[in-house]
Amino acid sequence: MRMVDVIEKKRNGNALTEEEIRYFVDGYTTGDIPDYQVSALMMAVYFQGMSDKETAVLTQAMVDSGETIDLSSIQGHKVDKHSTGGVGDKISFLVGPMVASVGVPVAKMSGRGLGHTGGTIDKLESISGFNVEITKDEFIANVNKNKLAVAGQTGNLAPADKKLYALRDVTATVDSIPLIAGSIMSKKIASGADSIVLDVKTGSGAFMKTLEDSEALAREMVAIGKNLGRNTIAVISDMNQPLGYEVGNANEIREAVEVLQGAKVNDLRELSLELSAHMAVLAKVFPDYDAAYKQIEENIDNGKAFEAFRTFVAAQGGDVAMIDDLSLLPSAPYAVEVKAQEEGYVNAIDAASIGVAAMYLGAGRATKESEINHGVGISLKKKIGDHVKAGETLLVLHSEEEEPKDSTEKALQAYEISSGKPDDLPLIYKVIR
Amino acid sequence: MRMVDVIEKKRNGNALTEEEIRYFVDGYTTGDIPDYQVSALMMAVYFQGMSDKETAVLTQAMVDSGETIDLSSIQGHKVDKHSTGGVGDKISFLVGPMVASVGVPVAKMSGRGLGHTGGTIDKLESISGFNVEITKDEFIANVNKNKLAVAGQTGNLAPADKKLYALRDVTATVDSIPLIAGSIMSKKIASGADSIVLDVKTGSGAFMKTLEDSEALAREMVAIGKNLGRNTIAVISDMNQPLGYEVGNANEIREAVEVLQGAKVNDLRELSLELSAHMAVLAKVFPDYDAAYKQIEENIDNGKAFEAFRTFVAAQGGDVAMIDDLSLLPSAPYAVEVKAQEEGYVNAIDAASIGVAAMYLGAGRATKESEINHGVGISLKKKIGDHVKAGETLLVLHSEEEEPKDSTEKALQAYEISSGKPDDLPLIYKVIR
Repeated sequence: MRMVDVIEKKRNGNALTEEEIRYFVDGYTTGDIPDYQVSALMMAVYFQGMSDKETAVLTQAMVDSGETIDLSSIQGHKVDKHSTGGVGDKISFLVGPMVASVGVPVAKMSGRGLGHTGGTIDKLESISGFNVEITKDEFIANVNKNKLAVAGQTGNLAPADKKLYALRDVTATVDSIPLIAGSIMSKKIASGADSIVLDVKTGSGAFMKTLEDSEALAREMVAIGKNLGRNTIAVISDMNQPLGYEVGNANEIREAVEVLQGAKVNDLRELSLELSAHMAVLAKVFPDYDAAYKQIEENIDNGKAFEAFRTFVAAQGGDVAMIDDLSLLPSAPYAVEVKAQEEGYVNAIDAASIGVAAMYLGAGRATKESEINHGVGISLKKKIGDHVKAGETLLVLHSEEEEPKDSTEKALQAYEISSGKPDDLPLIYKVIR
Repeated sequence: MRMVDVIEKKRNGNALTEEEIRYFVDGYTTGDIPDYQVSALMMAVYFQGMSDKETAVLTQAMVDSGETIDLSSIQGHKVDKHSTGGVGDKISFLVGPMVASVGVPVAKMSGRGLGHTGGTIDKLESISGFNVEITKDEFIANVNKNKLAVAGQTGNLAPADKKLYALRDVTATVDSIPLIAGSIMSKKIASGADSIVLDVKTGSGAFMKTLEDSEALAREMVAIGKNLGRNTIAVISDMNQPLGYEVGNANEIREAVEVLQGAKVNDLRELSLELSAHMAVLAKVFPDYDAAYKQIEENIDNGKAFEAFRTFVAAQGGDVAMIDDLSLLPSAPYAVEVKAQEEGYVNAIDAASIGVAAMYLGAGRATKESEINHGVGISLKKKIGDHVKAGETLLVLHSEEEEPKDSTEKALQAYEISSGKPDDLPLIYKVIR
């Protein structure tokens, strides 16, 4: 087989065979096939697409390029949740304890973030003593005992995906739905889940700006999951503004705990209930969605969901006092209010700008070497549809500096104020299964 | 400027600016831009094309990437002829002396061949003593005196094109008309011609198999020439079978001399007259095509065209005795007749297979290191439309071996015999200007 023939075949719009896909994925991983041939193939895929079958084979080949995590010693049906990413997304801290409280095992491998705020693990490390570097045995024992554990990603999962992604990033071949779908699903499948619930974001703050693209990505990922024997459901949810009111690390944990304790932050409560209910049904703990939803909502109101989070934190060495008294979580010395310059309704909040403003404060990493500051962050005071007077506070920057100029400017830019009240945004657009 | 943005712009179907094109051509030539980004861009160009303006800028940028040949000290308007390549194409040995005989200066830089037969220079070296390694001053003096000289390509012409072509060859991005056109024209323009006549081949033995593709390539090359201030005409001619009857090195020289001496090998005589007449008009030696054609035809019949060839050979040290007595040219010890296995009409002759059969005999180079054997080659005895009886000779292999098995098999495969007489093939399909 010659790589140039594989490129030509895809360029001409033909489907590649499993043998051809494995040939290039394996050859690229070992270095036998050079990057200049792979980038040409990626561009051909950008234009010609891939069938569901090809995309599934690509995903499996990327999984097979590295290690996979064996979760078979965990009792029950393991369901993973994955979000395509957005600003203020603390949903993992909600759905984990919520489904654990009804007996669904959640064994989550997570990474550190590079971007606006930290990743799941960085955020958890806001809690003193919280340890993500537990052994595989501890991890599994914790899940079996408490139904919930989170560990830092170890092992060499889907190295072909890492290498391909780095190449696509510099060759303008990122924006290809089969390639994005394969990349996400390869990591989920290598992580050992039996079923997967996907939270696909749509809107100005999401990777996919339009509902059409988000839906196409969701359909492709669901098809991959099914083709590879993983029951998969995708929920398409709004990311036209940050989720909830808090953006950062400690303050996202704080907001999540408040919701677990019953606070009615509607987008957070509603989205996490919906995702949790789908997870519980896939895990076969409930016969149907409504029954799952009802029980999980009850477990918020009766304290079981919060208790599951508390137990999980304690099991991984975290200081539970910080959870019981949220004022003990790290905080920043200055609370800088950013005020509206005109009266009107909040018409749009650019989530990406809010994210950048948070990063300027120190909440996220600009480069791999940056240190996360767990105490800084942003508290939104107004969201889309809210009325605001000139001089009223739009958001608060929790800052190490008295006058965080760049961050203030960026945060202010994010808000669009208009005279008319905008239509309500849906929270959930569609469920793809 | 970032290369990834240039790739994305082309991927999205937008025209690149001169600055962007020069950025990637220069960066790739110096090695500052890596091949994996350039191959992705080439694939984007394959799908999105390039405007005439972009293609002209690309061509000029490739010319500017290396040396150019300064022919300004040659008197008169220098016209170059270029063929897109075919089997049995000895037209250069005809048009050179034909236009020289009417006073058009021809300063030809040629290469050695890699493929079926040798290149122009290899074929000329069939004549003992013929020297292509003349100095620049001798070359120019010869053109000024005799109107015709041929030298081996020296200097580093269009290195960006060489590097790009090598990359396209292994990334399935050769078949892009703007890229092919730019590649050919960059070398012609770097070689210093004032005007260019292109012989674009079409048919089974050509790089472009269909008239539509050949015409698109011809139009693109003419547009580049005009955009860069070179008057350019393209003649689209037939390559559904080898040109003339001879394929090889010495035997192609022999056939060309016979045509210069008046032999009526119609495709060779007609095509070279047509190309020569266009060249003479572009050189402003004649007011119109008909006048040029008439005078050049007369110069064949009155011996002036042959005399121009003889003078040219003598000026470059070639043994004129070999031209006066063609039997002195190198020949092979065995003449192996390949015979028809059935009666009928020759319906098709696959030029590529004839070329490969000639290469097997030693007429061409399989690798850069191969030595050309000037004496071997193929003489066709039947061409498309000819009637043949079973056992009648289709062609003769001039061979170093008594039984050249591979070559015989390949040559026989090239012939398709059918019961009905095929329609006549046009020799010239179109002239694009």
